[in-house]
Amino acid sequence: MADSIKNKKEKDVIGWFNEVLLKAKVVDFSSVKGFSVYMPYGYMMWEISQKYLDKKFKELGVENVYFPSLIPEHLLAKEEKHIEHFSVEAAWVTMGGDKKLDERLAIRPTSETIIYDSLSNWIKSYRDLPMLLNQWVNIVRWETKETRFFLRGREFLWQEGHCAFRTEEEAEGNALKIVKIYKEFMEEIMAVPAFIGLKSEREKFAGADKSYTLEVFLPGNYASQAATSHVLGTNFSKPFEIKFLNEKNEWEYVHQTSWGISTRTIGVMVLEFGDDKGLVLPPKIAPIQIIIIPILGSRADEKILSESKRIRDELLKLGVRVKLDDDKDSSPGWKFNEYELKGVPMRLEVGEKELLNGELTYKVRFDGEKGVIKLDKLDSIVEKLNLIQSKMLNEQRKKTMSNIKITNNKDEFITGLKERKYILKAAWCGSEKCEDKIEEETSASSRFIPADKEELISDKCIYCGEKARFNAYFAQSF
Amino acid sequence: MADSIKNKKEKDVIGWFNEVLLKAKVVDFSSVKGFSVYMPYGYMMWEISQKYLDKKFKELGVENVYFPSLIPEHLLAKEEKHIEHFSVEAAWVTMGGDKKLDERLAIRPTSETIIYDSLSNWIKSYRDLPMLLNQWVNIVRWETKETRFFLRGREFLWQEGHCAFRTEEEAEGNALKIVKIYKEFMEEIMAVPAFIGLKSEREKFAGADKSYTLEVFLPGNYASQAATSHVLGTNFSKPFEIKFLNEKNEWEYVHQTSWGISTRTIGVMVLEFGDDKGLVLPPKIAPIQIIIIPILGSRADEKILSESKRIRDELLKLGVRVKLDDDKDSSPGWKFNEYELKGVPMRLEVGEKELLNGELTYKVRFDGEKGVIKLDKLDSIVEKLNLIQSKMLNEQRKKTMSNIKITNNKDEFITGLKERKYILKAAWCGSEKCEDKIEEETSASSRFIPADKEELISDKCIYCGEKARFNAYFAQSF
Repeated sequence: MADSIKNKKEKDVIGWFNEVLLKAKVVDFSSVKGFSVYMPYGYMMWEISQKYLDKKFKELGVENVYFPSLIPEHLLAKEEKHIEHFSVEAAWVTMGGDKKLDERLAIRPTSETIIYDSLSNWIKSYRDLPMLLNQWVNIVRWETKETRFFLRGREFLWQEGHCAFRTEEEAEGNALKIVKIYKEFMEEIMAVPAFIGLKSEREKFAGADKSYTLEVFLPGNYASQAATSHVLGTNFSKPFEIKFLNEKNEWEYVHQTSWGISTRTIGVMVLEFGDDKGLVLPPKIAPIQIIIIPILGSRADEKILSESKRIRDELLKLGVRVKLDDDKDSSPGWKFNEYELKGVPMRLEVGEKELLNGELTYKVRFDGEKGVIKLDKLDSIVEKLNLIQSKMLNEQRKKTMSNIKITNNKDEFITGLKERKYILKAAWCGSEKCEDKIEEETSASSRFIPADKEELISDKCIYCGEKARFNAYFAQSF
Repeated sequence: MADSIKNKKEKDVIGWFNEVLLKAKVVDFSSVKGFSVYMPYGYMMWEISQKYLDKKFKELGVENVYFPSLIPEHLLAKEEKHIEHFSVEAAWVTMGGDKKLDERLAIRPTSETIIYDSLSNWIKSYRDLPMLLNQWVNIVRWETKETRFFLRGREFLWQEGHCAFRTEEEAEGNALKIVKIYKEFMEEIMAVPAFIGLKSEREKFAGADKSYTLEVFLPGNYASQAATSHVLGTNFSKPFEIKFLNEKNEWEYVHQTSWGISTRTIGVMVLEFGDDKGLVLPPKIAPIQIIIIPILGSRADEKILSESKRIRDELLKLGVRVKLDDDKDSSPGWKFNEYELKGVPMRLEVGEKELLNGELTYKVRFDGEKGVIKLDKLDSIVEKLNLIQSKMLNEQRKKTMSNIKITNNKDEFITGLKERKYILKAAWCGSEKCEDKIEEETSASSRFIPADKEELISDKCIYCGEKARFNAYFAQSF
């Protein structure tokens, strides 16, 4: 029998998460503390994500580039809040070969500074704008908190977009357009409902005017920031002297954005859907969408095997990521468990009875639904996979929405957050001080402020009682 | 008029190379010494290369992964020759945030050690083999020689394949299969003739039993190692304890290979074909294959523009990477120069006369050929691009072959190498000492030993007079 999962998701979500990821061979620990290995099955999910996102970015005219992975300390220090935040979490290179370096180099914790150093040479005129750049790279940040696969590690993979515009409005529009692409990705590909909003003053990116966030709520009423898109204003273009001659021949500073989405999204998706049997993958992100398992051991074996291959080939032609497991050393039962552990969205059984009846038995991983598919209607599987995908998103959306509690009652707010009974939505003053205190008392922080104007739940801040400025969502971070 | 190239390729190949790459916006310098920036036009060539190669690898069953970018010193040290070679060229991380680390971490100069550390956990049985892994990553090596765009830098992009097998023969077969894929890539996509051979004892990879190399000869009779594929034997599997239970239930060490190709190949291609007007790109690697330039300034402008767009859209549908430059602020002459500088394989002119005649004027960048294409036969452009591609490869092959001199005369050998009059092929003893002396006297080294048995040119070594073991090619490195 395949390795079964010992930890229960309900009881010990971290233990369960690690066990599932390791047994399903998604990731592995490495010999470097806080760094993990992306195994083929996990990396393939990242490749699928990249393919989707890269296409969307290119449709907007974004071009890919590659900038040095090492950033001299003086460059990182050019924007005040930026260096303050990142210098304590950078990995510093101090030696090249056997020579001590004159200046420390940080492995990129994010690339604003090294990229904007070049933009000051590349941008001269309004004709050079907009400039829309992106890179797919690794990032190193020296986390001191306990690390977690995908969600918090000393190294992760992401893309970082860096754009420059003539006006504030264009920059704002770009930041918003991108966070919408991120939302589409999370919902269409990962089947995870996601919320667009603004980060609070305390939570926004070091050096941004404002940060759009794509927020996701997790089982246990935790929250996770799945992606961010920042409006940088002229905070970087001024110290980096990124200026252009406008059509009236006057110098102006460019308005910038930066935006990123990372491998964290895979961890979020695993947390949302996994169960005590293992992963449950939405079809659009699944490296294997269909597993074909021949039921062998009768006189019909040869026919079953050749028919299994034919089915596989036909599904391949339909563009389905399909695998046939015809290994004779493992039993069908072992295989059923194995591919449930790996979260394969749907399995097809090919046996003697099935072939006699001209149909296949299928089982859906997500809801356990069983049924038969006519052999002469294999193309209905594509439809079926799409249906599973949208069902997963819809059910997840219902769950998430039912966990959000709108409140005007301070006690309910505090207890709700502390005990993670709900995601709390309340009127808020937005001050850093108030947020610090909320965190101190509840371990939770503000997750986002709805980007569109909303009627205030109350005119007073739920926590400090001062004048409320907006509604906000609060939860503990995973 | 577009910026023209001031350096002549014949007179100052390095000055010319830098100027062309900078003016065509392929790469740029960065503020980090020895590190360059891959601009959109340059990075796109890498994306095209990745797409071709990744597909070929996957057809062999290779799976992509991602391993930590930082390698603890004790891991790097597990294979003796490996640490000796790489420790002096590693960039060392010694601080995480504001804490000194207990052990130095090298940014990967290559990933054998960090990957094989995991393989020792992943491989248990013959059923886990072969294991075929690859990653697309950045590499840092602290070059002390003067750096060059693409050809020698402190950071570059590459893929590194790492495979484990049950037998020596399988490993050997894999290393050879891969170097053949590299050759196909260089010739089919880059149009650069390339030679497969073996590296000498002195030149082989630190830790390999043998290294296959894909060697390319450059203008000025320089040589460059475009890619390598190493047979590692059990040199790593022994210290890393990568063992499997065979079918007889006995423990055996795996046989390994590692192989890589990098952004260097782009530099090689630029050197081969570029001329005093700029880049000359083979169609299959060109980010823009066709540039459409409308000849404006008559009453027919509107018609010319709409027709230009129609032509662009039709070519897009045919899968051609095409761009229409309808900017009204630049003259056609400026554009002609600009896209010649950028090496676009073919330009199409759309003017009043052309439309009247129902045909387009074209010019081929590579050989300057001019002619007309019937508007109703636009699909012939695809064929034309293929023809340019094969013509470029064939002409380059002729040039390269005519620069190879087979000799049995020591004086000719020495003068030929010193003055870079030829690439020299001669009988050789293969010893490290002899190779050191050749380099001292001529600045050249052995490039490769033909992989297939050949009749010896002489039974004595061309240089030291000892018994010759094989024929070898010699040249100076670029």
